[in-house]
Amino acid sequence: MIDTITFTQDLIRCPSVTPKDEGVFDLLQGALEKLGFTCHRLPFQEDGTERVENLYARIGTQAPNFCFAGHLDVVPVGDLAGWQYDPFGGEIHEGRLYGRGSADMKGAVAAFVEAVQNFLQAQGDTLSGSISFLITGDEEGPAINGTKKVLQWMEEQGEIMDHCLVGEPTNPQCMGEMMKVGRRGSINSVLTVHGTQGHVAYPHRADNPLPRLVKMLDALIAEPLDTGNEFFDPSSLSLTTIDCGNEVENVIPAQATAKFNIRYNNIHTGASLEEWIRKTLDEVDTNYTLKTRISGESFMSPQDILTDLIASATEKVTGVAPERSTSGGTSDARFITHSCTVAEFGLVGQTMHKVDENVKVEDLTNLSKIYQAILEDYFKEAS
Amino acid sequence: MIDTITFTQDLIRCPSVTPKDEGVFDLLQGALEKLGFTCHRLPFQEDGTERVENLYARIGTQAPNFCFAGHLDVVPVGDLAGWQYDPFGGEIHEGRLYGRGSADMKGAVAAFVEAVQNFLQAQGDTLSGSISFLITGDEEGPAINGTKKVLQWMEEQGEIMDHCLVGEPTNPQCMGEMMKVGRRGSINSVLTVHGTQGHVAYPHRADNPLPRLVKMLDALIAEPLDTGNEFFDPSSLSLTTIDCGNEVENVIPAQATAKFNIRYNNIHTGASLEEWIRKTLDEVDTNYTLKTRISGESFMSPQDILTDLIASATEKVTGVAPERSTSGGTSDARFITHSCTVAEFGLVGQTMHKVDENVKVEDLTNLSKIYQAILEDYFKEAS
Repeated sequence: MIDTITFTQDLIRCPSVTPKDEGVFDLLQGALEKLGFTCHRLPFQEDGTERVENLYARIGTQAPNFCFAGHLDVVPVGDLAGWQYDPFGGEIHEGRLYGRGSADMKGAVAAFVEAVQNFLQAQGDTLSGSISFLITGDEEGPAINGTKKVLQWMEEQGEIMDHCLVGEPTNPQCMGEMMKVGRRGSINSVLTVHGTQGHVAYPHRADNPLPRLVKMLDALIAEPLDTGNEFFDPSSLSLTTIDCGNEVENVIPAQATAKFNIRYNNIHTGASLEEWIRKTLDEVDTNYTLKTRISGESFMSPQDILTDLIASATEKVTGVAPERSTSGGTSDARFITHSCTVAEFGLVGQTMHKVDENVKVEDLTNLSKIYQAILEDYFKEAS
Repeated sequence: MIDTITFTQDLIRCPSVTPKDEGVFDLLQGALEKLGFTCHRLPFQEDGTERVENLYARIGTQAPNFCFAGHLDVVPVGDLAGWQYDPFGGEIHEGRLYGRGSADMKGAVAAFVEAVQNFLQAQGDTLSGSISFLITGDEEGPAINGTKKVLQWMEEQGEIMDHCLVGEPTNPQCMGEMMKVGRRGSINSVLTVHGTQGHVAYPHRADNPLPRLVKMLDALIAEPLDTGNEFFDPSSLSLTTIDCGNEVENVIPAQATAKFNIRYNNIHTGASLEEWIRKTLDEVDTNYTLKTRISGESFMSPQDILTDLIASATEKVTGVAPERSTSGGTSDARFITHSCTVAEFGLVGQTMHKVDENVKVEDLTNLSKIYQAILEDYFKEAS
């Protein structure tokens, strides 16, 4: 019998910092096979990247297929000296379980498993549909050999999900307060402005790229991109760095580079933003190079059964009605949204990626109960 | 008997790259002592700097004291492979004398000496005034242990100059076309804007210093500082670098730094510009640190006998009437201007600081004739 707390500790004790596996997938696969799941280990490795472990597991053959998605890789420990407890120890102190991945998101994966176990036990042999797990080891890394490639494999196999719940930590402070029903998109830009080097005593003989860069950036940040809408915060453009590297105080440099990130809501697409960026820059000057990379388009889950089930199960277990939010960073939900309706609900994310990452033991138990309640309601509706 | 060409070659053959002397001051001192000068060797060394050789020499005890000022240090060879001829060989090829310092400014120092020698010979014992040399070995270096300290020493000694001619290369292309009657000032600023680091997905929790830096720089470059005047080009502000060094594309940085240089005419002072900079920045935001360093105030020679003598002597020898300019980089004239009327006239500067630095042999001879004519007219007027 799996219980969420012990299983979270077991998972944390495998130091699976992306792209390392360290036995964590074997642990999960063993638990799922005991429950009757058919498991497909899907290691992927693109040229020039590191091999990453993935797992797709399913019980049942019929529709609807309810999928739990998540990751077993964790971010690095960071400042080890800053940790009160062993980051890979899974220790419990004063009602909190400590360890890298406790919140993001081994705790949620363990809760998936106990929820499924308890649900299947209660059901007997009468599951009218399927339950599946889509688990990657490349969510915290470049996300090249992870969920995206598993989804391709599933498409090739004719594997269809009907609804997918991603167990990322979605609650800012307290268990139950927030689910994620979409995410903003993210586009990174690298702008290099070109000029001609020269001496500051003879600026007319040089062509200083810096004033043009300043004017361009000023144009980009002059006006808000939008004011948001019912589901999304306003889009935001953040300058992240400006670099020139000229160490000689009497020399005008030949070029300078700025980088900026836009987190955008569903009023924009990556393509519409790139067009806007180029148009804005061109109005200042055209002697520049711009590289853009869209790391995820914005998306919004359809308002269907999935988000309602999450809301009612959460309220039943915690007494809190979760907000349907689209805030925060990106997650693998950006890939899954192309395959089926997806929403996210998990633990409290306050300490994720920090030293002394931890979750309340009580939250782990409640999360498993919420996931179980979702399954019960989902298959009741389906049958 | 000294002749300018041979003496220039001798001086060039001492590889006196700042702060090295390599016997070049002994050479000059020997020549001046033969002409009857009293020589004061003035080596200076401040804590944390290198020892630098200087020379003050004078013949005569009466006023007026006409001073030739300059330097015997040279900039480094740079790309040795790029030189056609030995940079310290002083070789003559097709009417040109090659070597580091030929133009800047050993050729002019040699021309000083021949001019004085010939003038004194013609005068006999009837010099009604004094001639002096203020020669440093720290003009191309930090200029801490050079002319500035010699001027302090002179003040302590009660040594008074009435007029001073600096032999820096002032002619852009052709001998005789330009003298310098002042220089723009130069102020360097380092602006650091402070903020609070954060994640691009949550920009409201961070305080990005980059948009404020952009607004500040945009305000500084928005309007020209002035339109110049009769004697000076417009002042110019050159942004020289912007650096942040944030390599993480989803992180908002905590601070960013920009550097800029202002070359300013006599409409401004260093202090008035610093006040303007702070006022302009404060209108955007006050969470910044600003460091400024004035490397030379702007100055303008009074329109007196000195510049007229240079003009008429130059026109007599070369047939060209020199423009009275205030353009270009700084020189030690910025220190001398506090002691007496100073102007600059020397060789053609086209190849200074470059590989294959050279001067026309003919220009060396003519420069010595010009300096001699200046002395003749100066002491004719004085007597």
